[in-house]
Amino acid sequence: MVYQTNRRPLWEVTTDLALAAQGKISADVVIKNGRLVNVHTAEIQAGVDVAIKHGRVVLVGRADHTIGRETLVIDAGGCYLVPGFLDGHIHVESSMVTVTEFARAVIPCGTTTIFMDPHEIANVLGLEGIRLMMEEGERLPLKVFTTMPSCVPAAPGFEDAGASIGPEEIREAMTWPGIIGLGEMMNFPGVLAGNPLVHEEIQATLKANKVVTGHYSVPETEVGLQGYIAAGISSCHEATRAEDALARMRLGMYAKMREGSAWQDVKATIKSITENRVDSRYAVLVSDDTHPETLLTLGHLNHVVRRAIQEGVDPVRAIQMATINPAQCFGVSRDLGSIAPGRCADILFVPDLADMKVERVMVDGTIVSEKGRVLFDLAPFAYPAKARRSVHLRSPITAGNFTIAAHGGKALARVIEVIEARVGTLHRQVEVPVEDGEIRSSVELDVAKVACIERHGGPGNMGLGLVRGFHLKGGAVASTVAHDSHNLLVVGMNDQDMALAANTLAECGGGMVVVRDGRVLALLPLPIAGLMSDRPVEEVRDMVAALERAWKELGCPLVSPFMTMALLSLPVIPELRVTNRGLVDTVNFRFVDLVVK
Amino acid sequence: MVYQTNRRPLWEVTTDLALAAQGKISADVVIKNGRLVNVHTAEIQAGVDVAIKHGRVVLVGRADHTIGRETLVIDAGGCYLVPGFLDGHIHVESSMVTVTEFARAVIPCGTTTIFMDPHEIANVLGLEGIRLMMEEGERLPLKVFTTMPSCVPAAPGFEDAGASIGPEEIREAMTWPGIIGLGEMMNFPGVLAGNPLVHEEIQATLKANKVVTGHYSVPETEVGLQGYIAAGISSCHEATRAEDALARMRLGMYAKMREGSAWQDVKATIKSITENRVDSRYAVLVSDDTHPETLLTLGHLNHVVRRAIQEGVDPVRAIQMATINPAQCFGVSRDLGSIAPGRCADILFVPDLADMKVERVMVDGTIVSEKGRVLFDLAPFAYPAKARRSVHLRSPITAGNFTIAAHGGKALARVIEVIEARVGTLHRQVEVPVEDGEIRSSVELDVAKVACIERHGGPGNMGLGLVRGFHLKGGAVASTVAHDSHNLLVVGMNDQDMALAANTLAECGGGMVVVRDGRVLALLPLPIAGLMSDRPVEEVRDMVAALERAWKELGCPLVSPFMTMALLSLPVIPELRVTNRGLVDTVNFRFVDLVVK
Repeated sequence: MVYQTNRRPLWEVTTDLALAAQGKISADVVIKNGRLVNVHTAEIQAGVDVAIKHGRVVLVGRADHTIGRETLVIDAGGCYLVPGFLDGHIHVESSMVTVTEFARAVIPCGTTTIFMDPHEIANVLGLEGIRLMMEEGERLPLKVFTTMPSCVPAAPGFEDAGASIGPEEIREAMTWPGIIGLGEMMNFPGVLAGNPLVHEEIQATLKANKVVTGHYSVPETEVGLQGYIAAGISSCHEATRAEDALARMRLGMYAKMREGSAWQDVKATIKSITENRVDSRYAVLVSDDTHPETLLTLGHLNHVVRRAIQEGVDPVRAIQMATINPAQCFGVSRDLGSIAPGRCADILFVPDLADMKVERVMVDGTIVSEKGRVLFDLAPFAYPAKARRSVHLRSPITAGNFTIAAHGGKALARVIEVIEARVGTLHRQVEVPVEDGEIRSSVELDVAKVACIERHGGPGNMGLGLVRGFHLKGGAVASTVAHDSHNLLVVGMNDQDMALAANTLAECGGGMVVVRDGRVLALLPLPIAGLMSDRPVEEVRDMVAALERAWKELGCPLVSPFMTMALLSLPVIPELRVTNRGLVDTVNFRFVDLVVK
Repeated sequence: MVYQTNRRPLWEVTTDLALAAQGKISADVVIKNGRLVNVHTAEIQAGVDVAIKHGRVVLVGRADHTIGRETLVIDAGGCYLVPGFLDGHIHVESSMVTVTEFARAVIPCGTTTIFMDPHEIANVLGLEGIRLMMEEGERLPLKVFTTMPSCVPAAPGFEDAGASIGPEEIREAMTWPGIIGLGEMMNFPGVLAGNPLVHEEIQATLKANKVVTGHYSVPETEVGLQGYIAAGISSCHEATRAEDALARMRLGMYAKMREGSAWQDVKATIKSITENRVDSRYAVLVSDDTHPETLLTLGHLNHVVRRAIQEGVDPVRAIQMATINPAQCFGVSRDLGSIAPGRCADILFVPDLADMKVERVMVDGTIVSEKGRVLFDLAPFAYPAKARRSVHLRSPITAGNFTIAAHGGKALARVIEVIEARVGTLHRQVEVPVEDGEIRSSVELDVAKVACIERHGGPGNMGLGLVRGFHLKGGAVASTVAHDSHNLLVVGMNDQDMALAANTLAECGGGMVVVRDGRVLALLPLPIAGLMSDRPVEEVRDMVAALERAWKELGCPLVSPFMTMALLSLPVIPELRVTNRGLVDTVNFRFVDLVVK
């Protein structure tokens, strides 16, 4: 059966809700015999029924009087009734599936609402891409709020994206009902420098009485962070240490503690709560970026909540961090984030809180998922041709494009060092051999070449660099998922394979590929904007697994190396990155030469 | 010096705030050496500076780098820095002074923001009255938000007010920037019965994305309260028992615990927190109605916070209930409710938290009050003639108007029994003697006559009843403060004095009066709408004191008997009341005869 939403705004149904609570009209659904996780008071209340009308809770307590002939009665069997989880910061594109497939993956994990930042598609397709993903999100059992991407491209002047967003687009988007606020303001240097365009974006959002979400990624809280918050930015998911998270909460900024596939900050950041026993209302758990594999094995927000519990947080407090806290952060607690009269009946049936496996998921009063499977078909969303053909190279890539010329016998070169499961890179200077007037990749030094090729039909230029930490023994990898401009990123140990990898992706409309010795070992096509597959999440997971095996064949021991790789081009996070315009020192925000001397 | 506000919306000043935090431009003000009461994390942080620009906090921590040549540096001398208090439910008219004088009284007590429900003036002057008080509130150091009165008259069909407000007026008012939501929805029976007009008011508010505040005044939480909350009503100040308050918080409704002059609920309601150790984010402290005497001796919200602390609440938690919690309740926590970057610099200097005496009050970065005195002149607001001549009787009142005819030697009569310091009355049946064909007041039985006379130029009718509990030995009292229609209420032991009392108020434009034996013992003129004095709060306090002495002279031992009396005509609170239309059984919402048989 194809899912159709019965969601209605509260103001449409106040009368029926009031009547149903009293049994003057029958409830549509009554859940009997639950153990309510009450996130308002942080209590567990046993023996609780929940009565539901028009998809909203009308009563929590004893509900027999609300049951009529047509009422569906569901026995919770003593399960905990947990409010549906809200993910306060999520990039759907990172899961490489459509919003529909993402919903199908995360609903069984208890995620019933997301605050999506369609930042990646915005870099490829601009406002039109954002609109497409918003529209796709409107028909799903998953409630999809959208934060309007603020930094497209992420670092103007340092990279070329497929679109650019400025104050005019922000003002326009703030009139769209699905837009809940401004997406992560990554240009914190611009905020602190008083950059007029950046502040115009923030001001347009505040004037529309919407929320400005943050991204402050340096470990500094005494001065810059304060100026950043003073500018009206109310949340941030870039704390990686307990003291970062604590500072944010103390300053009245929601600390969004992140646990995704490639970066797992909860272990450190949650200590801000467990070791200080502070009021946790400003703590929020988010996923940010998650692989299909993670979604299908570990779960989604249920996994993040479980991680917080494992780190010593009381289960009810941990649940608050994924329910009422994000609801308050975004100003939607009248509708979402708790099980209480008037709120949407988004309810998880959980047998055991520590385990946090979600047995059944109710959305708007309908059971939409049971034992890990969504019970409805979700109609696929038709992305238009423009969205499906987004890789536009100037000309086919050749091995010669990757030559790094240098003089003498050796050179002191800047090398990007990646660290497994960390967002940041290190800016290293490494002495590398020069042979035949060029610097080559080196297995001994664990130095690979990296290229970022403009692919949006723009200048078609390319930045070249060196990277260490992938431990490749040969071959090449390429990806059109290359934050944030999503140009064509290639990493390799030999130039022929690098060219093959790049051209393979150009032909299939984008995706990820691993090649060796002139042969494609694994390919994940991502035809929608070069970012998302049109296949079911399980297939994507399998294709990703094949890719990862292929990475391993090349010698890479990292977990989710593609996610680490995809950040090599992100010029807003320390310390050294490569864009289509060249190597960028992202601490001092300046271009630097590959060869120091 | 006349006060002039420098308040600016956040979106106007984001750039300067970001720059000032870094010291790139100088702070306007820096407070050195404070002990920050951090309501986000519920901590106290010692040795904290606060830097301020354009009336907003830009930095909390070490602020030396923000100090320039022009910066005013204030030494906090180790005082606690407490966020300015927000009163989440307050009727200014209950203090019988103008908004300006109210501000002058409460600011030294630490109240820097109020959510005012101008329900009383609305009953006399309708939308025009609301607009006048809103306008008066705009120029003050006190931040005045207005909730739009929802129930004017309180009980249509049971009383006649000077105006009536319906869905059309609500829709109109929701477009006014100063309106934060809908005022206390007292017509809970209408909500529960599905009354279309009532629901239209709620729906118009929800649709405007504003807050619906509540008033659910029966001790029932299992069914009716749930239907009431399900209709979108998010707060209520009518809990009088711990279990009422706990039920509200569990249901995700803000429990506004009230401590005013005549009703002191905190002792009971705060046990919901102290005896259950629940998360207190849904607990809010409010004053509701406060006498000038209380304001000038006990204080305002500082007194309510102190009371909560006295009852065993941790001081920081108690402060949260008057700062961040009400700010979140009304969705204004980006601007108010804490001391943090971006927020208005509304800061209290408090030497001792348990004592909660406020030494200095800063509003928008300016010290506006010191040691209990406001440092600025507040320009008086000119109420127009219409607002100042609002008592319109059909004809002068005579003693004969108060005759209660009856047959036989005695009669079983319905008597309103008042209870000191409680909102509710009891519906008693008392056997009273009948002499010369009429029921008279009786000192022995402690039964006085009560009359409610329409005074808005409408039908000019009068309801008659009997009241017990005032212990009057003679004379009469009258008041044009008579909730909620504010007709002319008279209580007396003899009919001549009752007539004199009524006519005295008609002549002076309304107020309160005590007479005995044909002589006025005390008179408090309230020329603005018959509700508010145009005199300074201290003078009003003295006049009220004179009135209370006069009440005592009549034999009444009650504290603040005028506030208890003023509710005799309020037909939305149990159990028996008298309006200009007659005696109302307010449990069953029907008119009843004075004589049972």
